[in-house]
Amino acid sequence: MKHLVMAAAFSLALGERAFAEDRRGTMTMPESASSLSVKDIESVSPALARYAREDVLADLWRRPQLSPRDRSIVTLAILIARNQPAEFKHQVDVALDNGVTAAEVSEIITHLAFYAGWPNAMSAIAVTQAVFADRGITADQLPPASPSLLPLNEQTERQRAVAVEANVGPISPGLVKFTADPLFLDLWQRPALKPRDRSLVTVSSLIASGQSTQVTYHLGRAMDNGLTAEEAGEIVAHAAFYAGWPNAFSAVSVVGEVLRGRAK
Amino acid sequence: MKHLVMAAAFSLALGERAFAEDRRGTMTMPESASSLSVKDIESVSPALARYAREDVLADLWRRPQLSPRDRSIVTLAILIARNQPAEFKHQVDVALDNGVTAAEVSEIITHLAFYAGWPNAMSAIAVTQAVFADRGITADQLPPASPSLLPLNEQTERQRAVAVEANVGPISPGLVKFTADPLFLDLWQRPALKPRDRSLVTVSSLIASGQSTQVTYHLGRAMDNGLTAEEAGEIVAHAAFYAGWPNAFSAVSVVGEVLRGRAK
Amino acid sequence: MKHLVMAAAFSLALGERAFAEDRRGTMTMPESASSLSVKDIESVSPALARYAREDVLADLWRRPQLSPRDRSIVTLAILIARNQPAEFKHQVDVALDNGVTAAEVSEIITHLAFYAGWPNAMSAIAVTQAVFADRGITADQLPPASPSLLPLNEQTERQRAVAVEANVGPISPGLVKFTADPLFLDLWQRPALKPRDRSLVTVSSLIASGQSTQVTYHLGRAMDNGLTAEEAGEIVAHAAFYAGWPNAFSAVSVVGEVLRGRAK
Repeated sequence: MKHLVMAAAFSLALGERAFAEDRRGTMTMPESASSLSVKDIESVSPALARYAREDVLADLWRRPQLSPRDRSIVTLAILIARNQPAEFKHQVDVALDNGVTAAEVSEIITHLAFYAGWPNAMSAIAVTQAVFADRGITADQLPPASPSLLPLNEQTERQRAVAVEANVGPISPGLVKFTADPLFLDLWQRPALKPRDRSLVTVSSLIASGQSTQVTYHLGRAMDNGLTAEEAGEIVAHAAFYAGWPNAFSAVSVVGEVLRGRAK
Repeated sequence: MKHLVMAAAFSLALGERAFAEDRRGTMTMPESASSLSVKDIESVSPALARYAREDVLADLWRRPQLSPRDRSIVTLAILIARNQPAEFKHQVDVALDNGVTAAEVSEIITHLAFYAGWPNAMSAIAVTQAVFADRGITADQLPPASPSLLPLNEQTERQRAVAVEANVGPISPGLVKFTADPLFLDLWQRPALKPRDRSLVTVSSLIASGQSTQVTYHLGRAMDNGLTAEEAGEIVAHAAFYAGWPNAFSAVSVVGEVLRGRAK
Repeated sequence: MKHLVMAAAFSLALGERAFAEDRRGTMTMPESASSLSVKDIESVSPALARYAREDVLADLWRRPQLSPRDRSIVTLAILIARNQPAEFKHQVDVALDNGVTAAEVSEIITHLAFYAGWPNAMSAIAVTQAVFADRGITADQLPPASPSLLPLNEQTERQRAVAVEANVGPISPGLVKFTADPLFLDLWQRPALKPRDRSLVTVSSLIASGQSTQVTYHLGRAMDNGLTAEEAGEIVAHAAFYAGWPNAFSAVSVVGEVLRGRAK
């Protein structure tokens, strides 16, 4: 796949758009917004080739409300949640070019094995393996199986455990057990993703699979760890393209409730 | 793939069924209801080979409540929404045989890039490209990237824009912007699908992905543009087979509300 | 794929775990919890290789609350519902090793053609065909297309038919018709799956696709036919791994309502 440094070219071509270079850094844009080439897309839909160029590449990915790195994290999470390995391959390349590390790609897949389901993670691994091999990424660049964990906030964890035991304990003791370990006592405390990014991955996955009621808890957690209101709103706009407008509209009212709740 | 003109054969074989030939026109039925051959299906499930023959091909697709062309549009939309490229390939062939034009197939994919998500459209393009090549369908038969748009109903658009700005503006300005352009000021005004068919595609996609609450608005729009109540009910029956009974039952109560609302 | 009889090895290795051998029988564990090898998984996520070993294979699948045979049925249903043929291939092998018969695998696919949608069943057939060929499973081991059906409970069926006619009849006569035949008068009465297992398949599929509101009816039916409360709770824990934590948490409250309703 060829990549072009297009920031300068777009600035000249579009003129009216003021790029917030400081927030975005240098951005390497692929020629196509897909694993398919522009020519492939045009052979079925000339319109989608145009929308890709004008709206996805020259506009959406360049909006300063969310960094290209964050957009890549959101996109990877959406594609895993919706089990779309063909486009995932392309977007792993874009993500690595946008500053997401191989360790973070690995950890996003690990996290979503739990939040999007084990088989979705396996599909993502099958294609990521090839990208890592192409780029010479080896085991020493990946997060270890059993790292030193981040310190646990004992009080928050006790509240979580008490609530889950009360609600789930009488129905599914197994779900209570596995939600504690490996989920909250292990996975969430792994240091390979910052807590803010781990919550960003979770929120993006929930929006992408139409599970918007569960966005409330995880978006709150993301914002406690530094995600801004502007970024939260822009995740929804980004998800509209990659998970479809209906999922974005289902999510936006839930995101609104969280933002209004925190503004008080 | 072999296709047989089976209308006469079925009439003789089934006897009791009165075909509404006038609404259906000549109908070319494939030998199998799948990309898989009848023999492939039988090698795992003899029962599904029978259901395919008796219920899907000889009954569902021949019911006069919805034309074969409309059934093909509904089926393509469902398969894109659920990202099922293997069956999509087969159904593009069926659709072209049922009178859906190559330009309409192209435009259905373009439309669902927005309603089902960009990656779903890319999967559909990958398989459609091969069908188009097999049939010698070339670029001049596809809708142009930037056609003259249908005239905009300024008043309806103003109402839509005001409502979205009020509900979404404070949360996600990006979503407001992209919902105006490219969505409602461009995509929805493209002439390559009639407004009734564009809404039919949208409704089918929403039913197929379990987003039934958003059916209300788009079914109303479809009926404003000529979809009948009988057709609306039959879309749900057709979706039961291609998107599963639970999605059909989730949709039917929403469709019922819309029909009762319009009967007043 | 190599399979190892690992029960003894795990007992020695883990020590503290008391296996309920009587409920589980001899259990053949695969080396990997995926179509991917342990080495493939490690090349992208060493952590997931560890979770697979410690949590999925040595813990989840060995918990006595649900037999390995039932776990395989639940897993197959989840994978069909979510259209994941790559992992399905692996799990058909595991299921056959866990005592699910080829006839039952065939019938699970047949059933989910209706509950998860026709194209999902076709994907499952495409990969199952290869597994059956590898194992020398032939047509005479599969359920016939038109067997003698189980006796129908006329009263229950009359109640069902009256309710569907009242709710769906004025909206979609086609859906009423097909829900009677082939669904309730034919598919549900086929003898190749016990009624308890057919409901288990349906419930698992509904949980896996986030259609938890429809779990109520089918879980009640499963429990009428012998599924225990402990098994119901453990299905949710199992589904957390294979369909993701959010679907499990959406399902658990519905399962809880059913259990409390029956405890009165």
